[in-house]
Amino acid sequence: MVEPWQDTTMPAHVRAADLLARMTTKEKTAQLAGVWIGAAAEGTADADVAPGQHAYAAGSAALDALRPYGLGHLTRPFGTVPVEPAEGVERLAELQRTIRAGNRFGLPAIAHEECLTGFAAWQATVFPTPLAWGATFDPALITEMAEAIGTSMRAVGIHQGLAPVLDVVRDPRWGRTEEAIGEDPYLVGTIGTAYVRGLEAAGIVATLKHFAGYSASRAARNHAPAALGPRELADVLLPPFEMAVRDGGARSVMPAYNDIDGLPAHAHTELLTQVLREHWQFTGTVVSDYYGVSLLEEAHRVADGEGGAARLALAAGVDVELPAARCFSTADPLPEDLLDRAALRVLTQKCELGLLDPDVETVTSGVPVDLNPPQMRELAQQAAEESVVLCANDAGVLPLGDEPRIALLGALAHEQAAMLGCYTFPRHVGVHHPGLPTGVEVLTLAEALRAELPGATFVDDPAAAEVCLAVVGDRSGLFGRGSSGEGCDTEDLQLPYGQAEVLDEALASGAPVVIVVLSGRPYALGRWADRAAAVVQAFFPGQAGGPAVAGVLSGRVDPSGRLPVGVPRSPGGQPAPYLAPPLGRHGFPSTVDPTPLYPFGHGLSYTAFTWDAPECETPELPTDGETSIRLTVRNTGDRAGTEVVQLYLHDPLGTVARPEVRLVGYARVPLEAGASAEVHATFPADLAAYTGADGRRVVEPGALELRVAASSALVHHTVPLTLTGPEREVGHGRRMRCETRVK
Amino acid sequence: MVEPWQDTTMPAHVRAADLLARMTTKEKTAQLAGVWIGAAAEGTADADVAPGQHAYAAGSAALDALRPYGLGHLTRPFGTVPVEPAEGVERLAELQRTIRAGNRFGLPAIAHEECLTGFAAWQATVFPTPLAWGATFDPALITEMAEAIGTSMRAVGIHQGLAPVLDVVRDPRWGRTEEAIGEDPYLVGTIGTAYVRGLEAAGIVATLKHFAGYSASRAARNHAPAALGPRELADVLLPPFEMAVRDGGARSVMPAYNDIDGLPAHAHTELLTQVLREHWQFTGTVVSDYYGVSLLEEAHRVADGEGGAARLALAAGVDVELPAARCFSTADPLPEDLLDRAALRVLTQKCELGLLDPDVETVTSGVPVDLNPPQMRELAQQAAEESVVLCANDAGVLPLGDEPRIALLGALAHEQAAMLGCYTFPRHVGVHHPGLPTGVEVLTLAEALRAELPGATFVDDPAAAEVCLAVVGDRSGLFGRGSSGEGCDTEDLQLPYGQAEVLDEALASGAPVVIVVLSGRPYALGRWADRAAAVVQAFFPGQAGGPAVAGVLSGRVDPSGRLPVGVPRSPGGQPAPYLAPPLGRHGFPSTVDPTPLYPFGHGLSYTAFTWDAPECETPELPTDGETSIRLTVRNTGDRAGTEVVQLYLHDPLGTVARPEVRLVGYARVPLEAGASAEVHATFPADLAAYTGADGRRVVEPGALELRVAASSALVHHTVPLTLTGPEREVGHGRRMRCETRVK
Repeated sequence: MVEPWQDTTMPAHVRAADLLARMTTKEKTAQLAGVWIGAAAEGTADADVAPGQHAYAAGSAALDALRPYGLGHLTRPFGTVPVEPAEGVERLAELQRTIRAGNRFGLPAIAHEECLTGFAAWQATVFPTPLAWGATFDPALITEMAEAIGTSMRAVGIHQGLAPVLDVVRDPRWGRTEEAIGEDPYLVGTIGTAYVRGLEAAGIVATLKHFAGYSASRAARNHAPAALGPRELADVLLPPFEMAVRDGGARSVMPAYNDIDGLPAHAHTELLTQVLREHWQFTGTVVSDYYGVSLLEEAHRVADGEGGAARLALAAGVDVELPAARCFSTADPLPEDLLDRAALRVLTQKCELGLLDPDVETVTSGVPVDLNPPQMRELAQQAAEESVVLCANDAGVLPLGDEPRIALLGALAHEQAAMLGCYTFPRHVGVHHPGLPTGVEVLTLAEALRAELPGATFVDDPAAAEVCLAVVGDRSGLFGRGSSGEGCDTEDLQLPYGQAEVLDEALASGAPVVIVVLSGRPYALGRWADRAAAVVQAFFPGQAGGPAVAGVLSGRVDPSGRLPVGVPRSPGGQPAPYLAPPLGRHGFPSTVDPTPLYPFGHGLSYTAFTWDAPECETPELPTDGETSIRLTVRNTGDRAGTEVVQLYLHDPLGTVARPEVRLVGYARVPLEAGASAEVHATFPADLAAYTGADGRRVVEPGALELRVAASSALVHHTVPLTLTGPEREVGHGRRMRCETRVK
Repeated sequence: MVEPWQDTTMPAHVRAADLLARMTTKEKTAQLAGVWIGAAAEGTADADVAPGQHAYAAGSAALDALRPYGLGHLTRPFGTVPVEPAEGVERLAELQRTIRAGNRFGLPAIAHEECLTGFAAWQATVFPTPLAWGATFDPALITEMAEAIGTSMRAVGIHQGLAPVLDVVRDPRWGRTEEAIGEDPYLVGTIGTAYVRGLEAAGIVATLKHFAGYSASRAARNHAPAALGPRELADVLLPPFEMAVRDGGARSVMPAYNDIDGLPAHAHTELLTQVLREHWQFTGTVVSDYYGVSLLEEAHRVADGEGGAARLALAAGVDVELPAARCFSTADPLPEDLLDRAALRVLTQKCELGLLDPDVETVTSGVPVDLNPPQMRELAQQAAEESVVLCANDAGVLPLGDEPRIALLGALAHEQAAMLGCYTFPRHVGVHHPGLPTGVEVLTLAEALRAELPGATFVDDPAAAEVCLAVVGDRSGLFGRGSSGEGCDTEDLQLPYGQAEVLDEALASGAPVVIVVLSGRPYALGRWADRAAAVVQAFFPGQAGGPAVAGVLSGRVDPSGRLPVGVPRSPGGQPAPYLAPPLGRHGFPSTVDPTPLYPFGHGLSYTAFTWDAPECETPELPTDGETSIRLTVRNTGDRAGTEVVQLYLHDPLGTVARPEVRLVGYARVPLEAGASAEVHATFPADLAAYTGADGRRVVEPGALELRVAASSALVHHTVPLTLTGPEREVGHGRRMRCETRVK
């Protein structure tokens, strides 16, 4: 007999509710817990991939204890220790069999894994870091990439991926800047949503993190409090999450470690329940960040004991404690209604994933596994190439000729660490296993240059070189093992490891100097920029980063990346986000001028473009209407290249101070030499909405200005608009996307 | 016949209302305006004392235009250009006669002046900057000082003083840090209230500024937005204002330039009306900061035109536009009810000041004027001496012997600028008048040392010295004319003017080095502190600063100052206020550790003290009760000295993350050698109140810990307390003061 919960013809929530009704308290609670097998097995501090991982009930003992009741999550089956992919598949299949056999319903666990720069498994394709996704300004590519990542994860038995990071960069001193997409909510929202769509299309549950305010932590210190008022939260930090939930269909959300104005995100009922579920109609699961529930007790000190922390988190809306149960396995009785609420969400998601089906096979064992197939390698290469930003090329020294005499300076030119983000397998796990092969081919920039330019001569002495490539930036790592990455915050934006000297020496040589920055955050370049022949910025571009940067230097690749964060002039004076009202944007009446050296959206090409004056469908539109503009962009140079048309909104008058400009649309326009294309952008009035003095989100009648621009500071054309009709409260149903088409 | 408004037997608000009823719209509006005479007369950009001063209706033309209708304020009659005090009195008297003769009621104007470091007039006593007041931990002295300042201002015809600054330091990169009292709300509140009481006791209207959030401006840039949630605002930024209104009786408040989470303070109805007037029962006037109403239109862009800005400011609760009318003199009709409300407040205040009395004489002309009499010189000296902080003296090189061989390094040892805050007359106005004598005697540290130590030998070569005094710090100034002061923000806390080299050279010499910092903000000293023999920190100590610092160095003065702001270890990583919850206070999980080199409250003496264990009256108290502790402090050294007993509150559990510790009481304890004193402190439970997760300010039952400490990091004793009974909402009637007595 098929029970209702097993009946695949019935809706998921009905099946889940039926199953829930059959469960004991212990069985429900087990669905809210994870187990982290590899963590205990490899239990030496040196091999830790997360701080505090041994404080949990972890490993096979924990599994044995939970097994009779079932298990909610399996934590990081591929990303904890190196495992041959095929062997990992077998291990995971065996684990799931054990789990299913242990509980009376035969339920498997949700297996989750990191996928910030691709699947965090040994031998899997290493994609560029999210800050580089931002630099591509190419949502379609990011969707394709994410779907490929998700497909490979699904194939080996993973159900949920702990990405994307939708924190809007507020202070690039934050070590996790590399994990974020950029400093503009619209860019983060559109690129992040593109990633979510791809991952979800592959059947993987995408996890939006960190909800919310983590990037606004005081002085960019990891876990420090976020001073945020309700308007900044609503208009800057939350929009990417709203877009990824409403437009992207993300099925999981992870709260942030920090508190917002005193209230920890893991205990933030307004965020986790009112905003997320009631306003945005989110129906998925909220999974805690690792150790996040415990921090309520141990660091935030808003909970009394493990039981208190569990009750607080459950009541606020956290459903699952990760990486494993500590507070949620408290001996204290937890309120049954809260357990039911969370367990129902988990079971509904398991049902959607097919995990309640009688014939579920979580992973097909015995099939060949290639986590770095040619299609993914190509995507990694395309993403890397599109993400490289040419910031300056005044002297015309780039692209290099065929037989350049190059002095290659800087230790990072010879290191893979400059290519790989902190959550890549090699930097995240591999570093704990000396001697382990990287698993995928990662050329250093030096190696890539030799391959790219077989006619080049490399000389040691900059005075003897035609061009000096000075390579500086970061080594990625976690918790102090690098200069960028989770827990690797910095006091200022000075180049780390004393690399200022590399640039000083290069410039002292007299040779034309190309500064190449391979980093996880922007660094201050004002001390050298005026004297450099060219500046190239790439953000941890992944396994194909070496060839991509070398390709831009050689000219094989026309640079088309645009800065997702401004590059500052000087190391101090942070935070200085570009999203600032007029009074905070310039110097006077302060001696500190936050104007960046290279602004948000900036990036050059080797060819040249003209932008015709845009035509506006109608300059007057009602507050619930939309208008469109079209303009022609022409490649007037003698080689193919890609322009990125950017639309910024300037609102001259409102009830509160607002950013001078913010991005509301963009389009990549690839053009052959001499070719032109028409860019067509629709602008819904909803995009002008902001949270006013009374806390309501409204579109107001009045004057607006659309700025058609090549960066946030380089405006080619302005389009005056007038919104007419009554003020309109858009609440939580606004249209967030400007549709931009190229023909 | 005496009209009701002239009848001195009737209450001020009745007289004001009667007068208001007789006024035309133009007459009411004129009461809300100021005129700045000297500004236009000296109208060259080089002589500006405030940016944009020429954008106003200013000078005698403006006065002529307004005269038939009356005039609200006279702006800075002594602080605009140098004037001999006696001549200034005559000029002001003549101006007031002109104003009175011009309007049909014979009303004079309120004359206001700056008094941040004393009366901002030529030849007036120059007191230490407010950050030095904080270092004294001596409210009684500050009251005495303020009363003396107020008395001299009142004697020359001034009615209102634009001080104190009650901004709690949040990021010392802010140029105005020197104008603030410290980084703890209780210290700022008690010292600030002490100042208010003194000024008001002399009959001068004290003006609390800047209301609110200015010190929390992004990256400490002058005028930049303040990201503040309602709890941080309520528990950190507002308490000093609440204390100064409720306990100090301040009669005027000035809004801040910045916006809070988008809402400019000059348009912030909740702050200016709900909080200030409805909750705190404030009945005085709200006067705009200079140009603050115009900024609503021109920079914040929340107002349409001058008229729009005027309406917005008036509606929010601004009563008077300073320094002169621009928006308030708009041709647009302004709502009569708003004009009435503001004018009634101004007229009521004028009535309280006696300015509605028939026989008013605003200033007695012809009397001798001494703005720097012996009593004030002595107070300036005492305040300077009490404010010098001995941060380190490990090598015992201080105090210096009678005949030391000294190498005195650092340009600031020879400059008055290192002694005087940015709002002192010499630095504020005098700098625009080259050749003008300082007006009061201000010894440089070099001059003071020669006077202090007649037996000392000064040598040029540090290698030939017994001790090397390396003097570094700031030159005060405004808007780029100094390294500290209004508009002189900084990107990091590196010593300015390349003075790191002074310390590097001094330490390279091999001689014992005493680092003497004369500054307007703390600077990072971690690079040198471990190698220095001693570190002395003074914050712009005023005209007697040279002798005070020299006295500490010689040993004539036992150092008794305590740090009102922590001194950081490294230049970056700001903001890092000591008021941080556990998760934001230390390094891990961040590579950036904000722990200061010398913490808030730190300061050494030349003698030694023991602190007996405190006795607690009752460790259990109801949530509406109080308890007291007493402890004996003993001077066990062989010379007189002063200990500062500090009480900090640690609350281990609450509904939101709260600072690990915050100051709730303190007492200076001067003790002869061998003497002891009993310190008695009452602690009302109200001081444990904080704004919880639901936004209500409550005292909760549960465990607390009082820490009896010599600094925020050096705890001598802990006193466990338990609050009993129900949670209590304290609203706006809490008792803010811990009464601390010494016997």
